[in-house]
Amino acid sequence: MKLFELTASEAIEKMVDEEILSEELIASCLGQIETKEGDIGAWSFWDKTKALEQAQLADTRRNIKKISGLSLNGVPVGIKDIFDTKDMPTENGTVIHQGRQPDHDAAVVRLLREAGAVILGKTVTAELAVYTPGKTKNPHDLTRTPGGSSSGSAAAVAAGMIPLAVGTQTNGSVIRPASYCGVVGFKPSFGTIPRANILRQAPSLDQVGVFSRSVMDSALLASVLMCPDEQYGDTLPMPQIDISQAEQPFSKEPKLGFIKTPVWSEASISTQDRCLAYVSELGLDIAHIDLPLVCEQAVSCHRTIMLCEMAHNYNNLYTESRDKISPILLGMLEEGKQISISDYLDAKNLLTEITGEIDATLKDFDAVITPATPAGAPAGLSSTGSPIFCTVWSLCGVPAISLPLLSGDLGMPLGLQFVSCRGTDTRLLRVAHRVERQHFSDMNKKNKGVV
Amino acid sequence: MKLFELTASEAIEKMVDEEILSEELIASCLGQIETKEGDIGAWSFWDKTKALEQAQLADTRRNIKKISGLSLNGVPVGIKDIFDTKDMPTENGTVIHQGRQPDHDAAVVRLLREAGAVILGKTVTAELAVYTPGKTKNPHDLTRTPGGSSSGSAAAVAAGMIPLAVGTQTNGSVIRPASYCGVVGFKPSFGTIPRANILRQAPSLDQVGVFSRSVMDSALLASVLMCPDEQYGDTLPMPQIDISQAEQPFSKEPKLGFIKTPVWSEASISTQDRCLAYVSELGLDIAHIDLPLVCEQAVSCHRTIMLCEMAHNYNNLYTESRDKISPILLGMLEEGKQISISDYLDAKNLLTEITGEIDATLKDFDAVITPATPAGAPAGLSSTGSPIFCTVWSLCGVPAISLPLLSGDLGMPLGLQFVSCRGTDTRLLRVAHRVERQHFSDMNKKNKGVV
Repeated sequence: MKLFELTASEAIEKMVDEEILSEELIASCLGQIETKEGDIGAWSFWDKTKALEQAQLADTRRNIKKISGLSLNGVPVGIKDIFDTKDMPTENGTVIHQGRQPDHDAAVVRLLREAGAVILGKTVTAELAVYTPGKTKNPHDLTRTPGGSSSGSAAAVAAGMIPLAVGTQTNGSVIRPASYCGVVGFKPSFGTIPRANILRQAPSLDQVGVFSRSVMDSALLASVLMCPDEQYGDTLPMPQIDISQAEQPFSKEPKLGFIKTPVWSEASISTQDRCLAYVSELGLDIAHIDLPLVCEQAVSCHRTIMLCEMAHNYNNLYTESRDKISPILLGMLEEGKQISISDYLDAKNLLTEITGEIDATLKDFDAVITPATPAGAPAGLSSTGSPIFCTVWSLCGVPAISLPLLSGDLGMPLGLQFVSCRGTDTRLLRVAHRVERQHFSDMNKKNKGVV
Repeated sequence: MKLFELTASEAIEKMVDEEILSEELIASCLGQIETKEGDIGAWSFWDKTKALEQAQLADTRRNIKKISGLSLNGVPVGIKDIFDTKDMPTENGTVIHQGRQPDHDAAVVRLLREAGAVILGKTVTAELAVYTPGKTKNPHDLTRTPGGSSSGSAAAVAAGMIPLAVGTQTNGSVIRPASYCGVVGFKPSFGTIPRANILRQAPSLDQVGVFSRSVMDSALLASVLMCPDEQYGDTLPMPQIDISQAEQPFSKEPKLGFIKTPVWSEASISTQDRCLAYVSELGLDIAHIDLPLVCEQAVSCHRTIMLCEMAHNYNNLYTESRDKISPILLGMLEEGKQISISDYLDAKNLLTEITGEIDATLKDFDAVITPATPAGAPAGLSSTGSPIFCTVWSLCGVPAISLPLLSGDLGMPLGLQFVSCRGTDTRLLRVAHRVERQHFSDMNKKNKGVV
């Protein structure tokens, strides 16, 4: 196994055991980037020298035993290019911000540096974290979209360039690219990770998420970003992730449900079949439940809030650089500007109502399973695919994780999404870890001809 | 000591020890209401028969030992008349809703019933929980306002009619009447108590609070309302109140600060002097700190959000019954209707920024002391006084408690306000309990001529 193939947890163990240096790990990841980046285009900025310098510092810290509390010491992380970085440009996926160099780090970047991580570079985002694709291609099929808007983060993790990456989700921008690229994508509960100095799109909906190749890697990265010791204006005093709890096997099987959601018919027939088959083959007692009627309004409610807030927060860009905005985003901004305050506040009140119903539905379960995307990555690079299976969960701010459990058409990866009540992130991760373990165990049995 | 004079905790102890029955307690409170209500006017509705029936049920439950988990069994509680009650009218302090009878309970009322409380009646609120006073007078001086908008709840607790009452605060509607009436008023962190089926004024700011005559009574009541086992759309998975923790003495003195706030000059000179003197006489090491500059915008930020949301949520009343709305509220609604979505969303973004600064300021302290009101209750009954010392704390949703520690002019009560970081309600109550204990101890010494 090459070093770039290691999960973060595996790499950390090897560094702790002094089997490998961070410098070796980073060199291996950089090698993989050099090999693959020309095809995939996951990065908007990366800097070999800076990365190796950070790795050497991490190795020095380890040598002199100054790594207490540095849970990501020497581990490479990719950062979606909407998080400000004081030492790398942050272009937000728009030519308007070409060469933009912030003089400060986003809170998330600062937390990563404080945890000893190596900031390997900035990953490609769709234009202003919305829909219009950047240059990234799906590592599993270069003619297909990696999904968006956290396109580069998902693709880079999938391609073995980095074990960990950070993204954001306002609608489906973590879960969707994770599903398309065949990696784990985890969007914790709304309000748990600080958003200071991230591109502000729609603050009622914008949420930070993470990508990795294992559930426990996502748990580890998210736990670093949740930052129990410090509060920010846009985080809430919510339960933190308890890693050791998330790792615990269940003594009694978890209580799971399956929800088709009101947009079930948007999924391809093969996706529907594969979801249902997987759920049935899990061998657990899984209740098939429906969302309350009001949730049928989730998509329109989300759209009103997102477009209205986006039009407000991108208004300077719209006013000053309209000609540099893609037609699809321009149309959204113009639609957003037409939304009345009355419709907006109605949507906000409706959000509260829907969230209440979702809470009431989810609270009886350790986690609920639901599609992540309508199908695997669609062909072509002109769209980042549909976020429709993420919308209601983003709207309500519940934690959601996509696991690469299914096969889509033509062998493309297809995620399965798990969600749970706000604040129960640890429990959700525990369920995801449980399912992931069973998945690998089943796959091993199949490979060995046991099944 | 008469039964109506007992705190809830004292009454509960006596009921547990079978020294008194709930029926006797309720009868005593009803007697006090009959004596005082003509002067004070704390109630918009109360029903002797219903109250005694509930008390008898509570006594029966105790007799047959079915009171496990019923932490308020047989304890009378008054409910601000903006919480829906399925068995009592809910008129929201407006003639427009005269005789309005909901067919359901507010979540808070349901939680109280589930805890075994006796819902004694509905307390007077200012018109639609804003400024225009109801009939209530200050029990300490009938020519003065009790404060608002939770006027009846504060006055009824102050007058010994009930040990516990529920109110709400969008700006200063718990802390201000508590300060004016000389009782404890506690507004927990935003998002901890469900608001289902309460009059919706400005959902970004509306917060449930409680009144009592001791800190631990407020802790008890708030803990019942925080409802750890069930989520609602408008509550967040935040830390619950831990009563036994709140009761714990400090082994090391708490770290306290004092903040004048940007509106210090709105306080009367005597209030300023009394606050500073009290803080200095506490005998603790209290740091004098300032709020960051951006907090100077808190009052205008709060006003924009409150008026805009209020105009939206009261729009039907405005459209259909304009002639039945007071001139002051009418003016506010018309001002609110003029606020643009851009100004509103700017204010919401500013709220996040201010909250971040407040968090950063408060996080180094167990609690921070600050004035509750500019002075004691002003003369006259045409206004409910100024909420200005509550605004920034309501805006940011931090927990706040007013303790009746000071004497205002002409012997009127004057509260001192304690605030802390969002989610640290237990710690705030612990500090308040510590200060309250010292206060009574000091008063006893003074009365005995020791000091």
